[in-house]
Amino acid sequence: MEGNHAFFVHKNQLVNALQHVQKAVSSKTTIPILTGIKFDIGTKGLIITGSDSDISIQVLIPLVENGEEWVQLIIPGKIVVPAKYILEIVKKLPGEMIEFEVIDHFTIIIKSGSSEFRLNGFDADEYPNLPQIIDEEEHVFTIPSDLLKMMIRQTQFAVSTIESRPILTGVLWNLENQVLKFTATDSHRLAVREATVESLTNLSFQNVVIPGRSLSELSKILDDTQTPVEIIVNENQILIKMNHVLFLSRLLDGTYPDTSRIIPDKYKTKIIIQTKKLLESIERASLLARDGKNNIVKFTNIENLLIEVSSNSPEVGNVTDQLQIKNIEGEPVKISFNAKYMLDALRAIDSEEVQIEFTGALSPFVIKPIEHHRILQLILPVRTY
Amino acid sequence: MEGNHAFFVHKNQLVNALQHVQKAVSSKTTIPILTGIKFDIGTKGLIITGSDSDISIQVLIPLVENGEEWVQLIIPGKIVVPAKYILEIVKKLPGEMIEFEVIDHFTIIIKSGSSEFRLNGFDADEYPNLPQIIDEEEHVFTIPSDLLKMMIRQTQFAVSTIESRPILTGVLWNLENQVLKFTATDSHRLAVREATVESLTNLSFQNVVIPGRSLSELSKILDDTQTPVEIIVNENQILIKMNHVLFLSRLLDGTYPDTSRIIPDKYKTKIIIQTKKLLESIERASLLARDGKNNIVKFTNIENLLIEVSSNSPEVGNVTDQLQIKNIEGEPVKISFNAKYMLDALRAIDSEEVQIEFTGALSPFVIKPIEHHRILQLILPVRTY
Repeated sequence: MEGNHAFFVHKNQLVNALQHVQKAVSSKTTIPILTGIKFDIGTKGLIITGSDSDISIQVLIPLVENGEEWVQLIIPGKIVVPAKYILEIVKKLPGEMIEFEVIDHFTIIIKSGSSEFRLNGFDADEYPNLPQIIDEEEHVFTIPSDLLKMMIRQTQFAVSTIESRPILTGVLWNLENQVLKFTATDSHRLAVREATVESLTNLSFQNVVIPGRSLSELSKILDDTQTPVEIIVNENQILIKMNHVLFLSRLLDGTYPDTSRIIPDKYKTKIIIQTKKLLESIERASLLARDGKNNIVKFTNIENLLIEVSSNSPEVGNVTDQLQIKNIEGEPVKISFNAKYMLDALRAIDSEEVQIEFTGALSPFVIKPIEHHRILQLILPVRTY
Repeated sequence: MEGNHAFFVHKNQLVNALQHVQKAVSSKTTIPILTGIKFDIGTKGLIITGSDSDISIQVLIPLVENGEEWVQLIIPGKIVVPAKYILEIVKKLPGEMIEFEVIDHFTIIIKSGSSEFRLNGFDADEYPNLPQIIDEEEHVFTIPSDLLKMMIRQTQFAVSTIESRPILTGVLWNLENQVLKFTATDSHRLAVREATVESLTNLSFQNVVIPGRSLSELSKILDDTQTPVEIIVNENQILIKMNHVLFLSRLLDGTYPDTSRIIPDKYKTKIIIQTKKLLESIERASLLARDGKNNIVKFTNIENLLIEVSSNSPEVGNVTDQLQIKNIEGEPVKISFNAKYMLDALRAIDSEEVQIEFTGALSPFVIKPIEHHRILQLILPVRTY
């Protein structure tokens, strides 16, 4: 029959691939074909694709890998399978290998052991083509998977969640002199992270702004190894190439604001403090305040090396916490800030001690590790004194 | 100051006690005092109580247990602490011991390490007294904790969730000749579980109906040991006494229907089947149907020892699954039922094989373990053939 195609695929490989691809599929899409996942079976193997038109994810399950036969090709072809059911069905099938066959154009027969599913599929010709990205060596840079994942974790939380300035819902990527720099801000706080990366040519770009949601989905796919990931950026798209996985995201339109002038270059007070102790103290102070609108905590030098962290919620009560600091330079501190911003910033810094640089009760302050300055968190204080 | 009281309590003991007591506290209560947890410190130790007036839970933290000093009494007294914050505060306090002090009548000071919380409490005199239950030996029976927990798990899921017949939202307990019997039904299915229990006298009762929600909270507190639990029932209340924990629930008003006549005493077909294989097969068959209103699967003898489990969802597709059975007696089976009821019933039977007794396509059928008949699940089929 015309259009018939068939193949066998190893269950665990398919479950793994579907879990990746489903991160790009939205149940809220207005484009019916995008509620499906495209299966394309050919001589390379089985290629499955999911997309919500902002993010597209494509996974290849090769015919053979490391001597293991993952896919057995019978007749090549393509079909779009309903995303809502396919992962659960595959997970619950009894056998190790699963047979797919397409009949009567779009009816998919899925067999394994003594089970047989018949699903109504969609025409793969209606599935949108992924944007083509010129994949030439001079446009590529590479970064270890675990480093990219860490850089996302250390910045992405600071993007704006309000749509009034859409450009701030993304993370700015700059590349210059082999230094990749991520910047995120919601205009109340700022997170910056830098790292050295490799490119064959002296590749550089500015104003590449990637939606926060894309990065959050990407970081779920990135593994915690140092395996290099290839990245290619063009005017509208970014492509991240992992082992057998392609991740494609659109970029945000518009010009990202210049944030360099916000970062103070001198300070009035510099303190050094244990990260975990400060984190726990802010957590306690925010327990009563977190239901309030601003979740404000006060941070006050009460003795040279003693800080009081406090908050007050008139109806509930108040909390004060005393905290030893390791070192202080400059004038005593008395400042108020949003506890959530401080918690986010401290959780992003994987360092036993942090230094905090204050430039006055109403000026932004900066939190950094003390070992290196490749990560910087900035918070705008709140007026309460 | 009048009414001042103070004590120290071990953090882990208090966290544990609060986690139990909070199961009885509802944030939706219309009685403000019940948004709090009562702390009562005296010579026995610290007694904490939570209640939503349907369920009350009381935990004693003794002054000393197994040579460990859990509570240090300074001045006795009582206070009601806001439930919304207290557990999180205690969990996040830095020290091993926590100091409580009440000043100015209802201000609670909580100190640990360098942290100090001040919370606005409530007057403990406004907290309702728990109903008194006559705790005489002749009204008590005992049951191992793990057995009671299992009996709840095997019946409670079958209670009705609709309020139109309130009595069916509870589980019926009967005790006669040292046999405790639980019955639950939502009028589409029925779960019955029996066990032998101990009582000093030949205690018996009928028509004791305990709200399903009470049992669900109780089973979270029951531990998985054979430690005996004491149970006392009166006209309106049931009291379950565990080690240092009292659980009190109101009973449902009304007469529970007589379900004994629904259970067929003969069958037209009896099959024996592996529980896990049947469960997995029904799970697959219900994957496509579960979004539909009825989640119907068909169960048909296609050969003597071969069953086809199938379901059809016109828009999505269909599924058929073939299943070997171990034994069949009587005429071939052809029946349809709600997959969820079957899954619930099979998950409640901890037995490698089950026997199912059918009495016709439109009559209730019965699922039991084959080793014993102390558990019985009954399902009303659906007309589709």
